[in-house]
Amino acid sequence: MFDKVYDVIVVGAGHAGSEAAASAANMGSSTLLITMNLQNIAQMSCNPAMGGIAKGQIVREIDALGGYSGIVSDTSAIQFKMLNKSKGPAMWSPRVQSDRMRFAEDWRMMLEGTPNLDFYQDMVSGLIIEGGKVAGVKTSLGIEVKAKSVVLTNGTFLNGLIHIGDKNFGGGRAGERAATGITEQLVDLGFQSGRMKTGTPPRVDGRSLDYSKMSEQPGDVVPEKFSYSNITKPLTNQRSCYMTYTSTLVHDLLREGFDRSPMFNGRIKSLGPRYCPSIEDKINRFADKDRHQLFIEPEGWNTCEVYVNGFSTSLPEDVQFKALRSVVGFEKVKFFRPGYAIEYDYFPPTQLRHTLETKLVEGLYFAGQINGTTGYEEAASQGLMAGINASLKVQEREEFVLKRNEAYIGVLIDDLITKGTEEPYRMFTSRAEYRTLLRQDNADFRLTPKGYEIGLASKARLIRMEDKHTKSDKFVQFFKDLSVKADVINPILESKNSAVVNQSGKLFKVFARPNIEMDDVRKIEEVEQYISEHDLDREIIEQTEIQVKYSGYIEKEKNNADKLTRLEDIKIPSNYDYSQIKSMSYEAREKLRKIQPTSISQASRISGVSPNDISVLLVYMGR
Amino acid sequence: MFDKVYDVIVVGAGHAGSEAAASAANMGSSTLLITMNLQNIAQMSCNPAMGGIAKGQIVREIDALGGYSGIVSDTSAIQFKMLNKSKGPAMWSPRVQSDRMRFAEDWRMMLEGTPNLDFYQDMVSGLIIEGGKVAGVKTSLGIEVKAKSVVLTNGTFLNGLIHIGDKNFGGGRAGERAATGITEQLVDLGFQSGRMKTGTPPRVDGRSLDYSKMSEQPGDVVPEKFSYSNITKPLTNQRSCYMTYTSTLVHDLLREGFDRSPMFNGRIKSLGPRYCPSIEDKINRFADKDRHQLFIEPEGWNTCEVYVNGFSTSLPEDVQFKALRSVVGFEKVKFFRPGYAIEYDYFPPTQLRHTLETKLVEGLYFAGQINGTTGYEEAASQGLMAGINASLKVQEREEFVLKRNEAYIGVLIDDLITKGTEEPYRMFTSRAEYRTLLRQDNADFRLTPKGYEIGLASKARLIRMEDKHTKSDKFVQFFKDLSVKADVINPILESKNSAVVNQSGKLFKVFARPNIEMDDVRKIEEVEQYISEHDLDREIIEQTEIQVKYSGYIEKEKNNADKLTRLEDIKIPSNYDYSQIKSMSYEAREKLRKIQPTSISQASRISGVSPNDISVLLVYMGR
Ligand SMILES: Cc1cc2nc3c(=O)[nH]c(=O)nc-3n(C[C@H](O)[C@H](O)[C@H](O)COP(=O)(O)OP(=O)(O)OC[C@H]3O[C@@H](n4cnc5c(N)ncnc54)[C@H](O)[C@@H]3O)c2cc1C
Ligand SMILES: Cc1cc2nc3c(=O)[nH]c(=O)nc-3n(C[C@H](O)[C@H](O)[C@H](O)COP(=O)(O)OP(=O)(O)OC[C@H]3O[C@@H](n4cnc5c(N)ncnc54)[C@H](O)[C@@H]3O)c2cc1C
Repeated sequence: MFDKVYDVIVVGAGHAGSEAAASAANMGSSTLLITMNLQNIAQMSCNPAMGGIAKGQIVREIDALGGYSGIVSDTSAIQFKMLNKSKGPAMWSPRVQSDRMRFAEDWRMMLEGTPNLDFYQDMVSGLIIEGGKVAGVKTSLGIEVKAKSVVLTNGTFLNGLIHIGDKNFGGGRAGERAATGITEQLVDLGFQSGRMKTGTPPRVDGRSLDYSKMSEQPGDVVPEKFSYSNITKPLTNQRSCYMTYTSTLVHDLLREGFDRSPMFNGRIKSLGPRYCPSIEDKINRFADKDRHQLFIEPEGWNTCEVYVNGFSTSLPEDVQFKALRSVVGFEKVKFFRPGYAIEYDYFPPTQLRHTLETKLVEGLYFAGQINGTTGYEEAASQGLMAGINASLKVQEREEFVLKRNEAYIGVLIDDLITKGTEEPYRMFTSRAEYRTLLRQDNADFRLTPKGYEIGLASKARLIRMEDKHTKSDKFVQFFKDLSVKADVINPILESKNSAVVNQSGKLFKVFARPNIEMDDVRKIEEVEQYISEHDLDREIIEQTEIQVKYSGYIEKEKNNADKLTRLEDIKIPSNYDYSQIKSMSYEAREKLRKIQPTSISQASRISGVSPNDISVLLVYMGR
Repeated sequence: MFDKVYDVIVVGAGHAGSEAAASAANMGSSTLLITMNLQNIAQMSCNPAMGGIAKGQIVREIDALGGYSGIVSDTSAIQFKMLNKSKGPAMWSPRVQSDRMRFAEDWRMMLEGTPNLDFYQDMVSGLIIEGGKVAGVKTSLGIEVKAKSVVLTNGTFLNGLIHIGDKNFGGGRAGERAATGITEQLVDLGFQSGRMKTGTPPRVDGRSLDYSKMSEQPGDVVPEKFSYSNITKPLTNQRSCYMTYTSTLVHDLLREGFDRSPMFNGRIKSLGPRYCPSIEDKINRFADKDRHQLFIEPEGWNTCEVYVNGFSTSLPEDVQFKALRSVVGFEKVKFFRPGYAIEYDYFPPTQLRHTLETKLVEGLYFAGQINGTTGYEEAASQGLMAGINASLKVQEREEFVLKRNEAYIGVLIDDLITKGTEEPYRMFTSRAEYRTLLRQDNADFRLTPKGYEIGLASKARLIRMEDKHTKSDKFVQFFKDLSVKADVINPILESKNSAVVNQSGKLFKVFARPNIEMDDVRKIEEVEQYISEHDLDREIIEQTEIQVKYSGYIEKEKNNADKLTRLEDIKIPSNYDYSQIKSMSYEAREKLRKIQPTSISQASRISGVSPNDISVLLVYMGR
């Protein structure tokens, strides 16, 4: 039925699979996206939101490279917030609430509009392997499709098992089947697999809630957006979320179900996401806290379905219900469906290269939850990178790897393949050594040139980025050049309780003071005039402010990062034989053999490899 | 978890379940809609279209009574056609192509906006029966929900088994699980169950088709709409369908797969819809036809997914593909998914009363495909009637039954419960004895007063209908009153090759002639003047024309129908003991005992009951 050999087959149309399919096809590879249900493309399995701390940065990075997640997040947003705006710009994190149906539909339409991309609905049940290389897939209908490379993005579907209280049943997500066959074949091929779990809260009927008892959480007054492109526009209209709390009563009611909890009675053995714990986990681990926040998030513009963020649980549904009814505002709550936990297979990601290709089978890539991560953004970024690299490999071009000082995506993938993960991995700003460099405002500077070079980001994106770069640089220079008289600047300084100056000086110097902001210097006529003469938009003005105010930190981190790059540059040959290095600990040699780091820098991040081992290794590498 | 006793629980949110939930809730019953996946409400399992011959009339009837199918069909339409416009108005049948995603989303929004209606996502696995009456349902999560009545609308999901070539697997629809438990329990309770099958064609990628080789099928130039209400508007913009043909080559290629066809090799034993046959059925049954029409229908406004109407098949997917590639315009076709057949459980509908309540279990109603019907419209109308009657029963009000001369819905239900059905039942105009009365243009006259009386249709609907009634009646009277001179009317008559008149006469008489149309008489100044003075809209003008031109037929049928009503009026007591009527054939007595007709008229429609048996019965009923 498929008479051609595809360049890339992507299995699964979740967040990882959708980005993988888009990037491979946009890079000119003939691509086939196979998924179990074409009506469920890019479903949000859990909360209706994109972005957030560190995750928002990832979405901006995906967008800067030419992926679709940013665009779809914008078109389907119902609320925008820049989190951490009161902190330094390295912490600013964009986040949207999404219309769940719009998100899925917009993704589908974006994919349908992508050339070189075909679609097929079926369950992939196995891979075709020829001579140690992947050669295609087999489906549950017995169809074989040939391809030069395959990206697996099965999410939570591989042997998925859903738990609610003491009941459990097969499923990849509520109301959807599990996928079978793939794990078994991969294990036969020599892959290691493991089990993880994640959970989701109940969905409830918004019409049954008393919002007047909760506190309203509106979006930003001046909403921004994810995409650097001009395809999308910021929201002009937003929906609010609401906040309420659990209580000791609620906790007591939940505890009544602990003996029937699959988490506590040993039925679920696998580890869940530490930073996205279930409510039973929270009251267990933080027994002294007498309340936890709950965010009540609408599922879309018009629907009355509501997501109870913070109340993820796999307790028996009667316990969930009784406890939730005791939450303020939830006295009359009606359930659409209870929360549940799901266990699924993953493959420890140390079995992958930096390109997300598996070490065992050439041409086979893994991306998303299958690698032990959690979160849409983490999944999407891996999908993007796997799609890019599968495409590059087929085209016999050089691989595309982002460094830890270039992108959160680089940190993510390097962490996964170097350190592995025993529990669902999510991104945090603290995982990045150089987070001052990896900001949400400059992902385009960092990545659009690279995305353009590999043929993914469009020329239009590059031009926009260059324009922003030039204009903000010039504006910075303007501040460096402009002298202001003491009597002009001093009233402004006084109003901000900042020390006055005695003589004229460059505006840059004053502007660089911690508590002086763009809004303050805009009170100076020449500044406002420059802005209007050069028609500078919000983004350029903000970029300039960041450059002026944080240039010191940024420079320092750049220098540190350069050191990293130097270690990064000392490459280790592939399949290096560590057994010859007798002066290294056995553990280190074993770890190095397993992970096969490609550089000294990566080797140094492997747990169990000491600085001493690195010194030895450096000698062997001729340094 | 559910602490209240609902008035009505509806199981399944397909077309039947959605209408049932809406009507029960709108009639003031506290209603719970339980379905396996709340994201799949009112999915169109097969073709993206509503209405058509006889089915369009049903949608109009649903709308006239206050159901939602007409409104949603209007809001999600991408093309409108009034079929059979060249025939008499009894044959006019509205039909739309639908945007599949919009249809489902609009339905969900309509339901969310309905008071008294709660939602719950879960699989119902059994009923709670107390003292022979239904008392609620049990779900796969082990939850019990109490209710005074339950409407089952499980569609094709009960023990659903999907077939493609020689493969088969459990499923309720492609990509969705089957439902289990209910059939087994009902059979234990004494119900008879059976198996039926239906099929669907492949979905393909519109971007791979060459439409220039097909003939375009645009919508009507002046599109109308389904709903009598003013909530919806006719389309201003439409998408075209396309037409192409199979060929002897295509048929030969299909025949190559016959030995692997589950239809022909005995794997599927149950009967499929005779009038919606698979392509293999068609080339088998009509071996002399060297081609069959295929209609290429878009699945929505923006999607490139396309439905190949006329190519329903369960042949092996490689055979489907090879054959379809030989269809003109399909030379490069790419599949989204192959066609398939599905077998599922149904319950012979002779086990039901006219209210769709089961005879065996009080308070339990069946509606939709579970009753052996096929088609969205048939399902929706049964759902509407079951929801209404469940509600009326709970409210201890009189039951609501439509007669055969009042509505296609009446014909449908009477056919089902009186004659049963061995193969999937779909509606045709020929099934209605009085189809001249059951027109699409007058469903509001026929049914809105009834819908209003039971508390379902709104006052606004009633007023609109009365206004249309009065205005069209008055306009008819105007034609009866208006005298036209021969020299005014004769040029018009001549232009239509109609015999001229010698003297002045009432315009009505001339207008009643077969080939004289409204457009002709509008050439007379007084007519045009009347229309503009009274601000008559398209609907009223059309209604008037129908009344003038078809009044003869309509009157005749009304008289015939009155006879029916007289026989309808001779009621048979419930649980009547036929064994005492020795002068009746054994077969007739058995059939009568089983069906338990409520009137002589119904008894006369039971197959195996002869006119002789009816005469005998009449005597026993004291006539
Ligand atoms: C119950 C639940 C709770 C969650 N809770 C959280 C949370 O609290 N916080 C958080 O950050 N993340 C959470 N997640 C995770 C988040 O949903 C995932 O990280 C993200 O969706 C992963 O994206 P993915 O593309 O890897 O996989 P998915 O989004 O799972 O997509 C997988 C896709 O692959 C398809 N597929 C699978 N197998 C096959 C096959 N063999 N053949 C064809 N198609 C196949 C599926 O149909 C699906 O379309 C949760 C997920 C679930 C299910
Ligand atoms: C493959 C296929 C081909 C078809 N081809 C044609 C055709 O050619 N022509 C034609 O006229 N019609 C066709 N149909 C039929 C048409 O789709 C149905 O007539 C119509 O959808 C029936 O509506 P329904 O409401 O009875 O059931 P469905 O639309 O099937 O809806 C049933 C609903 O009930 C839910 N449900 C089922 N069991 C449970 C449970 N135990 N608990 C909770 N929820 C449950 C399901 O999730 C679903 O939402 C086809 C259907 C299928 C599946």
